Amino acid sequence: MDEICEMDDSVTEADVLIRGGTILTMDDRGTVIPGGYIAVKGDAVARVGSGNGEGVHAKKTIDCRGGLILPGLINAHTHAAMTLFRGLADDLPLMDWLNQYIFPAESKMDADFVRTGTLLACAEMIMSGTTTFCDMYLFEDEAAKAVDEAGMRCLLGEVLYDFPSPNYGAVADGLRYTENLINKWHDHSLISIAVEPHSIYTCSPSLLKAANDLALRHKVPLVLHVAETISEIKEAKKRYGKKPFEHLEDLNILGPHVIADHCVHLDDTEIQRIIEYDVKPVHNPESNMKLASGVSPVFKLLNRGATVGLGTDGCASNNNLDLFAEMDTAAKLNKVEAMDPTVLDALTVLRMTTSMGAKVLGMAHKVGSLEKGKKADIIVVDINKPHLTPMYNPYSHLVYAVRGSDVSHSLINGKLVMEDRRLLSLDLAGILESSREKSRAVLSWITK
Amino acid sequence: MDEICEMDDSVTEADVLIRGGTILTMDDRGTVIPGGYIAVKGDAVARVGSGNGEGVHAKKTIDCRGGLILPGLINAHTHAAMTLFRGLADDLPLMDWLNQYIFPAESKMDADFVRTGTLLACAEMIMSGTTTFCDMYLFEDEAAKAVDEAGMRCLLGEVLYDFPSPNYGAVADGLRYTENLINKWHDHSLISIAVEPHSIYTCSPSLLKAANDLALRHKVPLVLHVAETISEIKEAKKRYGKKPFEHLEDLNILGPHVIADHCVHLDDTEIQRIIEYDVKPVHNPESNMKLASGVSPVFKLLNRGATVGLGTDGCASNNNLDLFAEMDTAAKLNKVEAMDPTVLDALTVLRMTTSMGAKVLGMAHKVGSLEKGKKADIIVVDINKPHLTPMYNPYSHLVYAVRGSDVSHSLINGKLVMEDRRLLSLDLAGILESSREKSRAVLSWITK
Repeated sequence: MDEICEMDDSVTEADVLIRGGTILTMDDRGTVIPGGYIAVKGDAVARVGSGNGEGVHAKKTIDCRGGLILPGLINAHTHAAMTLFRGLADDLPLMDWLNQYIFPAESKMDADFVRTGTLLACAEMIMSGTTTFCDMYLFEDEAAKAVDEAGMRCLLGEVLYDFPSPNYGAVADGLRYTENLINKWHDHSLISIAVEPHSIYTCSPSLLKAANDLALRHKVPLVLHVAETISEIKEAKKRYGKKPFEHLEDLNILGPHVIADHCVHLDDTEIQRIIEYDVKPVHNPESNMKLASGVSPVFKLLNRGATVGLGTDGCASNNNLDLFAEMDTAAKLNKVEAMDPTVLDALTVLRMTTSMGAKVLGMAHKVGSLEKGKKADIIVVDINKPHLTPMYNPYSHLVYAVRGSDVSHSLINGKLVMEDRRLLSLDLAGILESSREKSRAVLSWITK
Repeated sequence: MDEICEMDDSVTEADVLIRGGTILTMDDRGTVIPGGYIAVKGDAVARVGSGNGEGVHAKKTIDCRGGLILPGLINAHTHAAMTLFRGLADDLPLMDWLNQYIFPAESKMDADFVRTGTLLACAEMIMSGTTTFCDMYLFEDEAAKAVDEAGMRCLLGEVLYDFPSPNYGAVADGLRYTENLINKWHDHSLISIAVEPHSIYTCSPSLLKAANDLALRHKVPLVLHVAETISEIKEAKKRYGKKPFEHLEDLNILGPHVIADHCVHLDDTEIQRIIEYDVKPVHNPESNMKLASGVSPVFKLLNRGATVGLGTDGCASNNNLDLFAEMDTAAKLNKVEAMDPTVLDALTVLRMTTSMGAKVLGMAHKVGSLEKGKKADIIVVDINKPHLTPMYNPYSHLVYAVRGSDVSHSLINGKLVMEDRRLLSLDLAGILESSREKSRAVLSWITK
């Protein structure tokens, strides 16, 4: 592994000094600094180097006791407020799950429900090492406010489809609601907005085109589910005579701003479209397994040069938001799918949740690696535990052995949001209590 | 869910009273007791019921604060001391992994190495909810002593193969060593011995037969790897003109005492042999994925009535011993393999690590469920955490959301071995330090 020692003596004052651990910068060269330090000033990384940062005077010093210091993880696809449906219904055929549980519950929900569920998700994500996520759900202005309160970084958007929404009503209102979100949150340091039509099977060609026009006009990403299930492929062929990406190509929608969640059922021509248009696929292995959707050929996408992110999907189909578990599953699932233990090695998988994940969300200039000038989204992993002893290779540890609960500290945008596993930005006990209350409401909705 | 309230007023004195949680008894009826208690006297469960156990006077009371109380988990296949190879080599072709790393390291190891690695494994297992495991490795008398020190329950045996072992030397010595183990540990309350030939591709028919004779003579299980990789199947066909279970049937070895680890590559006739002879398969999904061995058709085995256990395999191919993660993976992997989300539901998977796992190891009369008279192997899961909130279904939580680090307490054979995540039976800091020392030795072995 390379070592660097960036000597920028002009930085002698810092807000936070993190030291005493191995720094995995996740920069393009894969720089690793055993026994390194990071100085944070304001919202950004001011200095990264070897040693204890002795010339730096900091208001706050975090000693990592030999732990791992790395960029905060990026969850490239979730439906945050669905934490409130965690374990509500499992082990069911997809249509029973949707029609008997998820749809009836979603038809009753309101802004306050989404607020509570999103706060719960943020608490869980911070406490398992995630600092940035991409969200798709309902009442997303309320979600944005919750994320702001949690101090997390987020790309989010209101889900759009052809049928009426409990939030905004008709289709045109959904587009207007999204444009209002874009304008409202435009200058926020942590929150950005995407246009998010649900999928090709719930959105008409005209809605998809209007959504894409809106995204292009405001230079924001277009997020949608693509090629998740076999029935989606069949439906697309029946309705349009096309495969999903082929259909989107026909509508002139494909481009580097498109974030395509799932991408499970892809033949070579569909993979070729993803590569040609630089579409950003997001892999959600645990959800795809639990719902028996299939296995995305991520090893093929990566071989062809695709920029692939990793997501947990929502808690109704996972049932947690632990990206460390998701990395482990992604690596292992692709190995057995390819029948090749060398695909999706640990470093590649960690890139999917850091530097490559940042590219997927259009945030590579801000986050995804620990380099001078980037925003200070940093986590510390405590390795003084039996399941993390001994350590031969930090990348291997992070993907195959670490769990979210091993993350001890988290900084987002320079601000300490978790210290020694104590959540600082939110009232955890209050959130757990209101979440339990909401779950009682959910039970009354589905049993009526 | 059923409720029971077993009123045995004769038990009024107890050593330990566990209360204030939901009890998942894992008995045959699937009894769940919300707000229940368990009284433990000596090494056994004396009373299980609803309420706070008010008539019971106990020396020690554990309040579970709404948590889950269940039987300690059973890891039906591992190589405990391989914790010291955790992350030593990943993402490699199987033969490179074995020939460049694992075999050179194993050729150098000694009893003290196995002692340290087994202690580390026990610490990790206790701290992630496992109370019983089945071990196969070298220097197993030393492993047994370490397990005894940890206070865990274990079925273990010296690995036997045709080539010389760093422990016992020649083949006949391995059988003698095993018989000595059987005699030495015969009356131990927690440790039992199995005869453990490695596999059909490393053991000659005569060694397999001799091993089975020894097992039958002493009425102990025979443990071996079967049908793990495609190359094993090819080799068996080439050498014997048979499939692996067919070969074992020919040798007159199959029976209910046989524990067959992996069972990945099975056609219908091989499944039929497992059913007919009541062989006990052990599923190791994470290892099979990571080494790209394949996917065991566990959903088919269960459908046909097989008694299937779950194992983590060793830390060189996983890389941790967390059975909660393994349950999650087992459920999800089988769903996507079957393309059916209803297979391996949460309750079934939890049975694989409790009541059914106990049957696999021949311990169903002692452990695997929380019932009066059974040995008190009990764990408590703390659910006051964001990733475990809300809770609709405790089985779903345990399989799809809980991680090993959520286990707060563990009792084995009536003895408290972990309290509020503090390991009581072992010196954790000392074990971590000696494990790090051993890892430096490993590096010197493989770089020579």
